[in-house]
Formats: sequence, structure tokens, C-alpha cells
Amino acid sequence: MAPQNVGILAMEIYFPPTCIQQDILENFDGASKGKYTIGLGQDCMAFCSEVEDVISMGLTAVTSLLEKYKIDPKQIGRMEVGSETVIDKSKSIKTFLMKIFEDCGNTDIEGVDSTNACYGGTAALFNCVNWVESSSWDGRYGLVVSTDSAVYAEGPARPTGGAGAVAMLIGPDAPIAFESKFRASHMSHAYDFYKPDLASEYPVVDGKLSQTCYLMALDSCYTGYCQKYEKLQGKQFSMADADYFVFHSPYNKLVQKSFARLVFDDVARNASSVDESAKEKLGPFTSLKGDESYQSRDLEKASQQVAKPDYDKKVQPGTLVPKQLGNMYTASLYAAFASLIHNKTSSLDGKRVMMFSYGSGLTATMFSLHLTEGKAPFSLSNIAKVMNIEHKLKSRTEFEPEKFVELMHVMEHRYGGKDYETSKDTSHLAPGTYYLTHVDSKYRRYYAKKEAAVANGH
Amino acid sequence: MAPQNVGILAMEIYFPPTCIQQDILENFDGASKGKYTIGLGQDCMAFCSEVEDVISMGLTAVTSLLEKYKIDPKQIGRMEVGSETVIDKSKSIKTFLMKIFEDCGNTDIEGVDSTNACYGGTAALFNCVNWVESSSWDGRYGLVVSTDSAVYAEGPARPTGGAGAVAMLIGPDAPIAFESKFRASHMSHAYDFYKPDLASEYPVVDGKLSQTCYLMALDSCYTGYCQKYEKLQGKQFSMADADYFVFHSPYNKLVQKSFARLVFDDVARNASSVDESAKEKLGPFTSLKGDESYQSRDLEKASQQVAKPDYDKKVQPGTLVPKQLGNMYTASLYAAFASLIHNKTSSLDGKRVMMFSYGSGLTATMFSLHLTEGKAPFSLSNIAKVMNIEHKLKSRTEFEPEKFVELMHVMEHRYGGKDYETSKDTSHLAPGTYYLTHVDSKYRRYYAKKEAAVANGH
Repeated sequence: MAPQNVGILAMEIYFPPTCIQQDILENFDGASKGKYTIGLGQDCMAFCSEVEDVISMGLTAVTSLLEKYKIDPKQIGRMEVGSETVIDKSKSIKTFLMKIFEDCGNTDIEGVDSTNACYGGTAALFNCVNWVESSSWDGRYGLVVSTDSAVYAEGPARPTGGAGAVAMLIGPDAPIAFESKFRASHMSHAYDFYKPDLASEYPVVDGKLSQTCYLMALDSCYTGYCQKYEKLQGKQFSMADADYFVFHSPYNKLVQKSFARLVFDDVARNASSVDESAKEKLGPFTSLKGDESYQSRDLEKASQQVAKPDYDKKVQPGTLVPKQLGNMYTASLYAAFASLIHNKTSSLDGKRVMMFSYGSGLTATMFSLHLTEGKAPFSLSNIAKVMNIEHKLKSRTEFEPEKFVELMHVMEHRYGGKDYETSKDTSHLAPGTYYLTHVDSKYRRYYAKKEAAVANGH
Repeated sequence: MAPQNVGILAMEIYFPPTCIQQDILENFDGASKGKYTIGLGQDCMAFCSEVEDVISMGLTAVTSLLEKYKIDPKQIGRMEVGSETVIDKSKSIKTFLMKIFEDCGNTDIEGVDSTNACYGGTAALFNCVNWVESSSWDGRYGLVVSTDSAVYAEGPARPTGGAGAVAMLIGPDAPIAFESKFRASHMSHAYDFYKPDLASEYPVVDGKLSQTCYLMALDSCYTGYCQKYEKLQGKQFSMADADYFVFHSPYNKLVQKSFARLVFDDVARNASSVDESAKEKLGPFTSLKGDESYQSRDLEKASQQVAKPDYDKKVQPGTLVPKQLGNMYTASLYAAFASLIHNKTSSLDGKRVMMFSYGSGLTATMFSLHLTEGKAPFSLSNIAKVMNIEHKLKSRTEFEPEKFVELMHVMEHRYGGKDYETSKDTSHLAPGTYYLTHVDSKYRRYYAKKEAAVANGH
């Protein structure tokens, strides 16, 4: 029989234990009060210190997942990585992660890296799910790793950085199952955010265009999703049919705008679930033409006001980690989803979660997940326990802005470089964390793992 | 009912019409006579002139495929690109190709870029096939594009360059169907060929290590393939069970060595199909330990001699395009396969073709295809006709070495650059070919299409 309810069986999240508070950075940068905390909606920003990078974070997330869910590395048949942090233009991050599996005698693991800005993790996830449903599936698990480090040049974009990695185990009978028939994508050629300066770690960003592209893609995907749902189910779909909404989260303010936009979309298409009050407040804006409606401050304000009660209920539970870490690019959507599981664990059984993935350039998909509690170790409550988000957030070290800026200078200098040793300072890292020790004269990178402290000095 | 015989329905190949003969380059470089032509086994090398790149080649291959097989762009539901030629570290090549589909009102096309050296095209292909077999398939076609430009710094690696793009249409009831259950991969962490110097187009290569990695991966994949076949079919698999062997082809000499290696593998595992003469000649080498056997010149020579008759029959028909174009990285294996279809069109019905894909870093898979003539337009003979390989090879312009070196200097200078115009010289290009016109001050790239000449001056 074909595998049923294919989806996410288990998750682990890792992020650097080094961070800076956004209100402190705001003050240090001489920005107006609230520019980062309210304007962007961000609380704190994670970043890699000079001993961590996307490869070490991936190694940490994968080994932790395998250990905590007691998965034999030989049981993995496919591994896909999503990332837009390029350390090598040819050798995939996946091949670095193979070290874990080779050491256990398993080299028969399909999959490479999927790349397009923040969307690579979603592409990797779809690929793994499809593999399980395909005739080439050999009965083993899939593994998806989203890992990114977002850093920006000094200036207004800098506070939109972040870093983190999410690992997901894929297989049938999952507590987090894909509703694969309901899925719509919007893909298009755009220059909203890109990285054409190969020698620099920093992207070229047109912030205003990127926000419009994001919202246009959201509209297009939502329209497509509703059409497919209605065609297959024979009834109208509206936001009332979903319990939670999780968005790619470059910064929280955009998440607020996105949800409000969907509320407006339901009014514009005259969905039967829309109440009179919403119609009254947003109806007048439905005559705005596409571009005008993306620029209208009045619409933005009115729709956010109408959306507020539902936002608090359906979106806010999935905002914790992105607000605390910043943009994790490919890991961002899945860190938001992890927040939802963390916050609502026990009450998610039977719920539908809408997911919106966006990657500049541009690629976007809206899809939905059906959640059931599941059985340990593959249960929502065990996933929440393993991820242990609250503990990880509390165990971080806050940097002073001077030290953060100094670190950014070191990293700029090292980017793409060779023949250097890192400090090997692992004092901030939890046991079990991988770290970069040195890069040799041929650019080869070497990593070590911080061992667990042995009790009683043995 | 689940879709059957999913695979490649149609193919198109595009390569730059600019090339240099290897014997001329050999002479110009002051290399010993036969170093490139016999030592590497290469005849000619294709390269992009300053108006072509991996994006323009992808645009050309895709539009040509859609036109020649009369595929409505709205019928494409997924498009995946394999490439290791990084023009932008975030924005995928796939998004550039979306322009073709957006213009026809189709933006709902899943897929991004798959990346790991020369293996990305295979990853993209597997992803597309799996999609058709998954529950998320919506009945439309998949499209896979492998596009690469291989250039090397002046020195011994320079003659191993090449350039080209292959586009493949994916769907059920294909004349080129996947035997998805018989497939084995070997993935491992290696530094044989990589591109860590982000500011340079050229890779870092350890040629000797790369060859050993390739052969070790080949051994491992072949062992795995045989085991899976035997487990599922209940009988031994040997080379006698396959009609053709197609290899990733960085240079022809490695293809010769690879096939000979498989012949040796069959002797070493005492396959029942191996004849006495082969046993006698290669048996003595089976006591060599792994590493010794990769380094032994005597084994190489003896196995190539034993393999020769089968090489001519089962491998040589798939060597034309790679020998004429050089290494096309991700497109290389599929250009080799295209050569087989070109050379053996009418006789391929019912044949099994073994495929070996290798990407440094490293990722490798051996898989097999089952061929049937099929019905036009999706028939082997129509595919051969559309690809029109002989005509394309004959229509090329040969460069003198001085002019080639001059061009390489221009390209080195422009790599990763902005704010320049190309010559827009399309005199070498066939009508319908896309070309790069300029890159603006924000690194945005602009392309145009050479229109077909209008008859009678109208």
C-alpha cells in the first residue's frame, strides 16, 4: 500500500547562543526609538560567532536529532539541505553532513542542496516528501536540513539579520502530515534581494520592492490555494478553515502585514465567512488597483486592525523564535512553525496549519499541514520537549553592540578566506555543538564537536 | 491509477557554436603531442563567448524544447535546474527561466536549483520524476534543465573545459523510463574539486584525488545497484544485463577507465557472465587492496584491453557530444545520453541503459533506464530528430587559440562584475538563441533573443 500521511515525524532546532537585543542595537545605531523593536517588530537577533557557520549548525542539528529521537544513521535514505549561505560554489553543504553517516557505514543517501534564497528549505522538504511517495522510496527516512546565517552590511538592513538551523525527519504516518493536493506556487523573475557580488557575504536588497513582491506572491498563492481546494473539495475555502498561519518571517512586521493582507483578500473575494464589520471597514479598499493596494497605508492600517483578534489567536503562537532570532532565511518558516509547536503542543491535535514560504528572486508556495498528536517518539509533545526552545533561548549570551560590530568586521575579513585558525573558544557553546577550528591553505574546513562535560572529573 | 513508466518524454540540447580543436590547443599550449586528444581523449572544446552564459543557454534550450515538441508553457507544473555555475549566490537560475512562463500567464511552477558540482542535473531529474509519482502531482509536465559552463585557469586543466545545456520533459508513459527500484548512491565528504574562492570562476582541483574518488564511487554504486537488483529480482546482475553504459564525462579517458573498472568489478565478484579469458587476464589483480587497485597501471591497462570490444559496443555510442564539447558539468551525463539516442535511435527499443552520475564533493548515483520507441512527438526517433546533433556540431565556428585566450581574459575580468555591455555580436548564433546584452549598475542581467531571419526582406 502507498505510504499515507507523509510528513514531518520529528524536528530539532539549533541556533547560535550568541545574540544582541534589538533595543540596544537600535540605541547604538542612533536609530529612532522603536525603529527595530516596533518598526520591524523584532526583539533580539542571533548571529554566528567566529567558531560557527551554516555547516557547523547543520552538523549540530542533525546529530542532535538522530540522538534525541534514537534514529540509527543507517535508517536515513535521503538528506536534502536548503540554504542560501554559500561557503563553496560547487561542494554542497549536504556533503559536509555526510561525515556523520559515513562514520556509521551509510553512504547510500540521495539528495543535494536546494537553492533559491529563503525558499530552499521548502524545496528540500517537498523533495523529501515526494521521494517517500515515489516508487524509488526504499522504506528509510528522509532528512531535511535548513541552515542559514543572515548578515547585512552596516546600515538600515543590519538589524534584519539572524541565524539558525532546523532539521526535520520525513516519513509516513507523521504527526505533521502534508495536505499535498492543496498547494499553490508563485514563481517569477525579480531582483528584490539577491547576491550577485560573489566576493561579499552581503546581499543587494531593494527593501520596498521585496515587500511588494512578498505580498503579491502571497496574494497569488492564496488565490491558487483557494481555487485548488474548491475544485477538489467542492466548497469554498476561506481563512476560517485554517487554525493557524505560519509565514516566512524576515521580520515580524511583515508577518503582521501578510496576515492582514489575507484578511483583506477574503473580503475582496467576498468569502462567506467574512463578517459584516470587516466588510464595512475593508470593503471601500477593494476598488484599489493591485499596485495601489500594496502601497496604501490606509488599507494596511485598517486591515491590521480588523485582523488583530485573529492574528493574536492564529499567528502570534508562531512568532516567538523568529522575533528572538531574526531572519534565518531557509530556516525561518520552520523556526516559526517550531514556535507554534512549542507554544500550543497539547492543543494542536486535528488542526490545520497554513504555511507560506517565500524566497526572493522569486519563488513562493502556500501549502497546508494536518496535525495529529501522534505516538512517541514521533509525537507533537515529544517534538516540543526535544526542541526545548525556552531553555535554548534562556541560555544565550547577549553581546554588547561594540563587540558585535567588532565580530562583524572579523567575519567580513574572513569571508571566502583561507589559511586561518579560529579562536576555538567554545565557552558559549552547549555540549554536543560543532564548531569550526581552522581553514587550511587549500580552503578546506575542519570542524570539531564540543564534548559533554564528564561528571565527577572522569 | 498511479502514473506508470515515468521518465523522460522529450529532450533538447544546446551548446555554444564557438569551439576550439583540442589538437590545435595542445600545440598552442606546447603540450606533448596527443596529450589532450589521446591523454584526455578529447576532440574539441565548446565555450561561451561573451554574449552567452548558463542563463542564456537555459533560456535557449527551454524555448526550443517547448516549440519543437509543441508544449504549451501552461502545461509545465514543475521546473528544476541543475547547475554549478554560480552567477548569483541567492537568486536561482530557475527564476530567470520563469520569464518564459510568466509571459504565458503561468507562475504556478514548483522547483528551484539543485546544487552539488556535476550532480545537480541528476538530483533535479530525480526530483521531477518523484514529483510525478507523488500525491502532489497535478497532472502537468515536469521540466529539467542542466546548464553549465566549465572554464579553468591557464594550465593543465584548461583543456578539460566545456559548455552546454540539456532540457528534458518529464512525465508518465515515457520512451525513456526510470527503473526506480534499481538505484544506488554513494555520497561522501571529499575535497577533490570545489569552488571555495568565491571571487574566481575557476575551481580548486586535485585531479588525481578526483579520479580516485570517481572510481571509488563507481565501485560503491555498482555494488549497491547489483545488491538491490538481486534482492528484488532474485537473480544475479552483471554487465551482460545492460545494453549501454553512459557515464558522467569530464573527459573521455575517464569514461574508458570507468567502463574497464566495471569489467574488473564483475571479475572480482565472480559474476557468472564473465568469460574464462577475462578471468585469466584480470583474476591476478583481484588480490590488490582497494587503494592499490585504483593506482595500478597494469590493472588499468589489462582491464581496458579486456573491456575494449564491449566498450566499442556499449559505451562508444554515448561519447560523441562530450568528446566534441568537453565537460558540461551537470549537462555532461545527459549530453552523453543524447549522443546514444543520436547514434542508435532506431535500435534502442527495449534496451536497458545504465547511467552513472558523479559530482565532486562528492555525490554519485548509478541508475538505469528502460527504453521504448514510444509515439511521436515523444518517440526516440523524434527526440533524435529534434536534437539534430550532427547539424549543430557541424555549424560551429572554430576559434584560433590566440582569440580563445583573449576571450578567456575578457571573461575573467567580467566574472562577478557589473555595469557593462556585451558586444551584442550574434553573428555566430543560430536564430532563436538567447544572448546577454548588458549587466546594469545593480548587477541586473538583460537578455535578448536572436530572431529568425525573415525571408525575402519582409
